[in-house]
Amino acid sequence: MKIESSQTTGSFTLPGEAGYEKLTLDLAKKWGADTIRDSDGTQLSPEIVKSGYDIYSTVCLVRSVQPWARENLEKLQQNFLMSFPLVAESKTLVIDLLKGYFREQFVVNASDDPKKWWQVFDRTTGQEVPKKKWDFHAKRGTVKIHDTVPGHKYTVNFLAFRIWEEISMYNHITNNWGDREHLAAVDPMHPETQKVILAFLKKWLDEHPDTTVVRFTSMFYNFTWFWGDDPNLRYIYSDWGDYEMTVSPRALRLFEKKYGYKLTSEDFVNGGLYNSTQNAPSRRYRDYMEFIHDFVVDFGRTCIKMVQERGKKAFVFYDDHWIGVEPYGPRFKDFGFDGLIKCVFNAFEVRKCSHAPGVKTHELRLHPYLFPTGLKGEPTFKTGGNPTLDAKNFWIDARRGIVRAPIDRIGLGGYLSLVEPWPDFQDYIAQLAQEFRLLKSFHQGDKAYTAPFKVAVLTAWGSLRSWIASGHFVRGLDYNELIESLAGLPLDVVFISFDDLLAHGVPKDVKVMINCGREGSAWSGGPYWNEPKIDEILTQWVQRGGGFIGIAEPSAVSSPGQLFKLSHVLGLDRDRGERLANGKYKYAAPGAPHFITADVEGELDFGKEVDGIYALGAGVQVLADKDNSPRLAVNTFGKGRSVYFSGHKFTPQNTRLIHRAIHWAANREDDFQKWNSTNIRTESAYFPKKKKLVVINNSGEIQKTTVSGATGKTYSMALEPHGIEILTLD
Amino acid sequence: MKIESSQTTGSFTLPGEAGYEKLTLDLAKKWGADTIRDSDGTQLSPEIVKSGYDIYSTVCLVRSVQPWARENLEKLQQNFLMSFPLVAESKTLVIDLLKGYFREQFVVNASDDPKKWWQVFDRTTGQEVPKKKWDFHAKRGTVKIHDTVPGHKYTVNFLAFRIWEEISMYNHITNNWGDREHLAAVDPMHPETQKVILAFLKKWLDEHPDTTVVRFTSMFYNFTWFWGDDPNLRYIYSDWGDYEMTVSPRALRLFEKKYGYKLTSEDFVNGGLYNSTQNAPSRRYRDYMEFIHDFVVDFGRTCIKMVQERGKKAFVFYDDHWIGVEPYGPRFKDFGFDGLIKCVFNAFEVRKCSHAPGVKTHELRLHPYLFPTGLKGEPTFKTGGNPTLDAKNFWIDARRGIVRAPIDRIGLGGYLSLVEPWPDFQDYIAQLAQEFRLLKSFHQGDKAYTAPFKVAVLTAWGSLRSWIASGHFVRGLDYNELIESLAGLPLDVVFISFDDLLAHGVPKDVKVMINCGREGSAWSGGPYWNEPKIDEILTQWVQRGGGFIGIAEPSAVSSPGQLFKLSHVLGLDRDRGERLANGKYKYAAPGAPHFITADVEGELDFGKEVDGIYALGAGVQVLADKDNSPRLAVNTFGKGRSVYFSGHKFTPQNTRLIHRAIHWAANREDDFQKWNSTNIRTESAYFPKKKKLVVINNSGEIQKTTVSGATGKTYSMALEPHGIEILTLD
Repeated sequence: MKIESSQTTGSFTLPGEAGYEKLTLDLAKKWGADTIRDSDGTQLSPEIVKSGYDIYSTVCLVRSVQPWARENLEKLQQNFLMSFPLVAESKTLVIDLLKGYFREQFVVNASDDPKKWWQVFDRTTGQEVPKKKWDFHAKRGTVKIHDTVPGHKYTVNFLAFRIWEEISMYNHITNNWGDREHLAAVDPMHPETQKVILAFLKKWLDEHPDTTVVRFTSMFYNFTWFWGDDPNLRYIYSDWGDYEMTVSPRALRLFEKKYGYKLTSEDFVNGGLYNSTQNAPSRRYRDYMEFIHDFVVDFGRTCIKMVQERGKKAFVFYDDHWIGVEPYGPRFKDFGFDGLIKCVFNAFEVRKCSHAPGVKTHELRLHPYLFPTGLKGEPTFKTGGNPTLDAKNFWIDARRGIVRAPIDRIGLGGYLSLVEPWPDFQDYIAQLAQEFRLLKSFHQGDKAYTAPFKVAVLTAWGSLRSWIASGHFVRGLDYNELIESLAGLPLDVVFISFDDLLAHGVPKDVKVMINCGREGSAWSGGPYWNEPKIDEILTQWVQRGGGFIGIAEPSAVSSPGQLFKLSHVLGLDRDRGERLANGKYKYAAPGAPHFITADVEGELDFGKEVDGIYALGAGVQVLADKDNSPRLAVNTFGKGRSVYFSGHKFTPQNTRLIHRAIHWAANREDDFQKWNSTNIRTESAYFPKKKKLVVINNSGEIQKTTVSGATGKTYSMALEPHGIEILTLD
Repeated sequence: MKIESSQTTGSFTLPGEAGYEKLTLDLAKKWGADTIRDSDGTQLSPEIVKSGYDIYSTVCLVRSVQPWARENLEKLQQNFLMSFPLVAESKTLVIDLLKGYFREQFVVNASDDPKKWWQVFDRTTGQEVPKKKWDFHAKRGTVKIHDTVPGHKYTVNFLAFRIWEEISMYNHITNNWGDREHLAAVDPMHPETQKVILAFLKKWLDEHPDTTVVRFTSMFYNFTWFWGDDPNLRYIYSDWGDYEMTVSPRALRLFEKKYGYKLTSEDFVNGGLYNSTQNAPSRRYRDYMEFIHDFVVDFGRTCIKMVQERGKKAFVFYDDHWIGVEPYGPRFKDFGFDGLIKCVFNAFEVRKCSHAPGVKTHELRLHPYLFPTGLKGEPTFKTGGNPTLDAKNFWIDARRGIVRAPIDRIGLGGYLSLVEPWPDFQDYIAQLAQEFRLLKSFHQGDKAYTAPFKVAVLTAWGSLRSWIASGHFVRGLDYNELIESLAGLPLDVVFISFDDLLAHGVPKDVKVMINCGREGSAWSGGPYWNEPKIDEILTQWVQRGGGFIGIAEPSAVSSPGQLFKLSHVLGLDRDRGERLANGKYKYAAPGAPHFITADVEGELDFGKEVDGIYALGAGVQVLADKDNSPRLAVNTFGKGRSVYFSGHKFTPQNTRLIHRAIHWAANREDDFQKWNSTNIRTESAYFPKKKKLVVINNSGEIQKTTVSGATGKTYSMALEPHGIEILTLD
């Protein structure tokens, strides 16, 4: 279709590039940009910054004070590391602490007393080795353990300073920057560092009079990224939500003072698992996150105030150094940010940006970035690339979220000069920007139709990590795949935690609860299911009419004879081999038609699935199975209903299955067709006040579809590949 | 080949049948039988018992005293059952104890004080409900629980008498025996029952003057078999090695007196998992087994003495009521049995019979049984059946064991009349019997060649359950598949337990240790791996040159950051999803030739496999993988070696892989070819004193193969389908 809109400009951030002033200003006009930004690696020339556009300038405070950082090693950021396990062969064992780690990233912290902060473990027994039984040799960077038991395995938890900031390190190494300076990140937990940072910021603001928006490259702490020296094990540990890289003796002392108890190195190291967002967090670690969040908000507020006092706006980038920022955290609003910018690959990232409270402007950074190659090294803006097709494919993934939830701005990043030889890309971005402005206009003073009930996703993180598993979309992780499916559906989705359930029960407007993930994951909940009250609340809620959807290992926590705490609700449970002697109920063969499977076209593909599922009795109806293990089953429990899926993979068919399952579980099958599109490769959104029906084609082929209105009236259409249709109804 | 043997008769037990006297005596001659037996459902006529053959007569003591059993309900055998879980909806909950159970098998034991023996559990909290909070209503067979928490799940552990003995029940129902009496099994734990049984035995012996061998249908207690009333859940629980069906208040009181502590109902019920042989046993349960073994030996000895005092022999059947008999138990020899009879489907069952110590005669009951249909309802001796082919296929499976280990006798069971219309079956059994006698003769005064070191299989059961997983060969269970592979290899295999390791370390002559199974299983070891001493002993043993082979989840017990306790030995570990944030070492792509994979012909098929395996570093060499998860990998650790397999399935290729892996792990690759057959569908055994080389074809097709002698000389031959070749070397 041809986009007709009165708004042909605005809401678009363009990456300018010094040396390409004409291209910058031409494309700013063509794409309807109102803002020009610099990027990592590009500069804006006076010609650009004086051109009358708003100017975004990026700044990363913690790596901006370089000469000082190098001269104040003990003010660098640090973290606990676990030395690689070593087996003792005799009565003493010497461990080279950094062996296996990238020595350009880490140096051992020899300035804070090791005996006070470090721990040595006998991992064979699980016991800590008494402090008097080991010595640290600072010069050699080794720990010598005495009275070791031959055959036992030992590790040392030690503090290491990071002498090379990870994003700088990644870009440097990936792009062969050779001699260019290794930037180090300072730790603002120290009052001295805060002074240096604030002085830098003041100077920087003085030097950027034309900047209208200061875009913080997040705040102070990066997600965790520990590198190895072996090219075959370069990324020893990386987690986009872990607070490992915020630790210091000062932080630990302040924590103890505030919370009244001490954290140990093992609270961070956790046998080498650290505190991955993917795994259910401990209470102690949750306290620590809160402590860091408070600090980041407090000191961040000071920085933001300085920006705003100059009449500039402060935006924050929701990637990289976002640890402690927590846009869904209770105090995020206290930063006083004007805008939040999220780089997005897909729909759930759009939702993650859109719903963040406490900030006025929600902006997306779209893919592809204007780089010669993509993230996996594939060609983009160079021979062999097809950046227009890339842009279309990224757009249809992100658009599923944009039609559901309001976004204020979009933009690009990278080297603008690269798009010069790609006129079709230039044209497509102009069209995409128009499409975005139109969709944005529909959300203004209106809200896309959603089913008349809420759907809650129950995880250990709850709303704190709304629309986020850890970082970007990891394919193959059932919970990631699930939230991607949900991100484009006409549903009000809320995220609740076990603590929320304990404190408030199930919210009244929630009709369906989803729990998805493997046992022990933060998504399934792990040990949180040991709290009987959780089981009790949910059991009674379903008994009284609630709908529960379990995926993979819902409510899983191992106890003799039972894995799923809510097995009675689901009518099934999982056997991991321990029930070889227990008989399994012979359920009726699948095949009967069911509301949930009405649109299934071919074979089911749930991705990585859970096996060994067994039905508890006659109540449960199995809709699909494999090797006598149910893959999709429904059950009634009291007045409520439950649905079980053995896995989830984001595909049109599975998105439809989960959508139908939600309506079935809610006992609201009748509402399902309303404003819904028959063709599973298309989706529709209806804006009731504006009477606009938006239908999107999520595929690269032509699609025909029919949408049902509220009164049963239907609307049929054919959609171009990656296309969109907008009907005005009356 | 044609079997040439001087021994054309003997060592064969034929099932006679009254009314078919001529057939009985003709076949006894044709098959070279020296013994005629009765079977369940057949009688021997005077013409047969007076014919001069040895006569086996079967007797099952515990179900032989029927009028008395019915009149003494409280002397019947009993067991704990767990009622099916029920969720409370209000403050009281009534549980119908036997709901879901087969009421023709069980009645609630209302005569022993429920408050003393039973337990009620809140399975939501895992806590026992105080005894004052529940009441038993004997007439209704219900328990009413007070002050229940709505939403919580409750179960009752209660005692139930069994009013129908399980083998009788199974045969009765399977064969539609209609009005025929339901036999009940009495519990010899009561002195009154012992008196009745001994009186019966005395009378029975008086009435069987021609019987030369009394074949006890095992002793007193059956393997566990709980039936349900729903045809879709007929077998609620069945385990061939579980002691559940030996329990009684008297047994529990005597146990407490002897062991100084009390067992509870939950020690038996275990959340509904009971004490399946497949799962790692608790210490308490092991004590209880020992207690029952002692009782069965003591009272069994009295019965056997009575038999032997009449000049008759006493044999025992190693199936059905074998609980407490434990042929590999420390006191089995004290029974004083003359013979042990094992019904066999396959090679490990042959080994299980062959190596049982403390008994002179080891006899096999071969398949097919002379029944119209097989165990899965397939036709045998009726239209559509091919009993000769069945016999050949069973024989080649069993023969793998018979060429390795001595067996004294073979025989058949069932209705002899059924073989009348199958002359080719009659001929084949005559040939098979000759083949057996020849193989038996080779073992006399000689021992088939085995590699010059021992292989130990490490399990929680150790030697107590040598060559037995639980019952017969369950396909798909890795440990079962493994011991079937081992049962036909030229290796000295011993079974050792964790207790053995703790008490004595690794035996000196053992060069390879195998640990195979899923986490928590009795085969892998489950919680036994929590004992650091085990880890220590094995680590040091490998360090000094031992060979360790892990299959599936060896040494598995979950701890943060580690699943396999011996991960350092294996050079790998398993990630079940918790290491999503941890990097995985990029091992070199498989493909390099290796001693272990030298005979691999096509795709690997390990059956049900373990995934998520990751290499710890550069040391480990991956020989095969799938989806970046190693399936077969080798490692060196100190002076020792390790091999990991992600699963095992009994196939010629996998049997060869494990055989080669054992020699590689033992650092004895040079010995591998000695007396080994090149064709993996054939196997060879060399009897050095008799200078006989036996080569067997384990397939139904013609096979060519070459065997290497000790000096490098080779012997090539072609083998008929199911065939055997015997060369006399000099």
